[in-house]
Amino acid sequence: MTIVPEGLIPDLLTREASFEAVEKVFAAMAAGEAYNFPVVREAIGHEDALYGFKGGFDRTGQVLGLKAGGYWPHNLEKQGVINHQSTVFLFDPDSGRVKAMVGGNYLTALRTAAASSVSIRHLARKDAKVLGMIGAGHQATFQLRAALETHAFEKVIGWNLHPEMLPNLAKVAEEAGLAFEAVELTGMTEADVIITITSSFAPSLLAEHVSPGTHVACMGTDTKGKQEVEAALLARATVFCDEVAQSVSIGEAQHAVAEGLLAEADVVQLGAVINKSHAGRTSDAEITLFDGTGVGLQDLAVSAAIVEVAKNNGSAITVPL
Amino acid sequence: MTIVPEGLIPDLLTREASFEAVEKVFAAMAAGEAYNFPVVREAIGHEDALYGFKGGFDRTGQVLGLKAGGYWPHNLEKQGVINHQSTVFLFDPDSGRVKAMVGGNYLTALRTAAASSVSIRHLARKDAKVLGMIGAGHQATFQLRAALETHAFEKVIGWNLHPEMLPNLAKVAEEAGLAFEAVELTGMTEADVIITITSSFAPSLLAEHVSPGTHVACMGTDTKGKQEVEAALLARATVFCDEVAQSVSIGEAQHAVAEGLLAEADVVQLGAVINKSHAGRTSDAEITLFDGTGVGLQDLAVSAAIVEVAKNNGSAITVPL
Repeated sequence: MTIVPEGLIPDLLTREASFEAVEKVFAAMAAGEAYNFPVVREAIGHEDALYGFKGGFDRTGQVLGLKAGGYWPHNLEKQGVINHQSTVFLFDPDSGRVKAMVGGNYLTALRTAAASSVSIRHLARKDAKVLGMIGAGHQATFQLRAALETHAFEKVIGWNLHPEMLPNLAKVAEEAGLAFEAVELTGMTEADVIITITSSFAPSLLAEHVSPGTHVACMGTDTKGKQEVEAALLARATVFCDEVAQSVSIGEAQHAVAEGLLAEADVVQLGAVINKSHAGRTSDAEITLFDGTGVGLQDLAVSAAIVEVAKNNGSAITVPL
Repeated sequence: MTIVPEGLIPDLLTREASFEAVEKVFAAMAAGEAYNFPVVREAIGHEDALYGFKGGFDRTGQVLGLKAGGYWPHNLEKQGVINHQSTVFLFDPDSGRVKAMVGGNYLTALRTAAASSVSIRHLARKDAKVLGMIGAGHQATFQLRAALETHAFEKVIGWNLHPEMLPNLAKVAEEAGLAFEAVELTGMTEADVIITITSSFAPSLLAEHVSPGTHVACMGTDTKGKQEVEAALLARATVFCDEVAQSVSIGEAQHAVAEGLLAEADVVQLGAVINKSHAGRTSDAEITLFDGTGVGLQDLAVSAAIVEVAKNNGSAITVPL
């Protein structure tokens, strides 16, 4: 079997490869060729940890396996390692034998960034110029970097509950040669594309902060109760997602559906747009909104790509089983 | 992290160590110190395979992880490898980082054998002399070998739907210096302990085939619809199990509960007997029945024991992560 340790992955996995893997697996999901298994997520009663498994099978890519791990809130302070810890295991779909193990931390950041970028590629207006960021933490820098490589933005604006973190965004924008401007939430009306990437239980971005024609990628909500944007915004928008079942239960759409502002049947898998079985954006005035909850198949797809690269360049560890 | 490949495990894992690990984790489960996560089991629509994850956490033993894998019915014919394929992954409960990977095939056979042996140790009459086997396949030889090491039986009798397989049992009995006799099902009344280990969807062992005072370990039923013994036998017996939720839904007890012959509340965790919070057998005439469905914690406990041995004797593969 092949092992690709966490430390090797930043040198092996490009944003382009993450984008391609995520785009392909979203398409396979919408075509009914790939599906995610029920998610196991347990509060284990030790170290306040949440631990579980996200598995799936992609028939098109012949990728089978799971990401295992979770959130250990005291890790940084007690162990000096990051709080999110995960590992991906791939299996041979022809025999059930384990095939590869891949460190899952960095790839999770990149596949999450890839998801909002895939949504921008397929749903944003082609003439979008201003990118708005809601959130300025570690993951926000990943989302921003990937978005700037996906589309030729001319300016980045940003808001964060704690404004002292905004230099994180400014640094990435400047590296890409773009001006960065800190704004109030009302200033987000200037944006053509908005990415929200916060861990919040009350909406920051309201419907009135979003101009007609904007594409909004909501990337922070992955749990019951979390919320980044006002439910009324989803009522005004055409709503897309990675997986409908997750979107309406643990994603941003949970609130609009609960309030009767949005029907589950109105939520479209982004993969259908990639497959061209859904038209996607149909006018320059339409607001499109992508609800990215994060599915196991994204992790598996990106891991399979990493394993290929690592095998080809000889950096993978091979263990006889 | 530590890797113990499948091929090393027969040399590392003794039946005694399996017995101890399974006994301890059954006790921890009954004490509320260890629990199994919801099982994921998916027909993936490829190679007729069933694939999934059985995870759990044992606070007492500080063992966290999962067994992943399943059943690939065409493996032997197409790939030349066995149809049951699984791998165990252990995680550090203090940090969520992956700690060990252990080949899961041989250990599954041994932990299943250990479960019936633990039930014999704690529920069979001390003067039990005749061991009856229902089933004579590959796994039956594991159950028999473990049972003969657990208790001083004087004779083995056996029945199988296909009698031509009975020499499998005779060979193991003879290796232990015991006589083996093939019997009809009616001949099972001679047995003091009976182990059923078949893959059947209709009962073989009827209530009339079991004498008062017998201990019956039902080890073959782990799926809705499977059945090895008549439901009326459970009504006559004191029923024990590894995990109540599994026993009444996918175990042997599913049928007696569905027919109203047994209440879920009457099914006792074997761990409670090990912990002495339940008296276990209370008379020489009582029929005791153990419904062994197989839980993830057994796999994790045995894997943790293997990892310790492999580290101590230097045979483990260490991979820097």
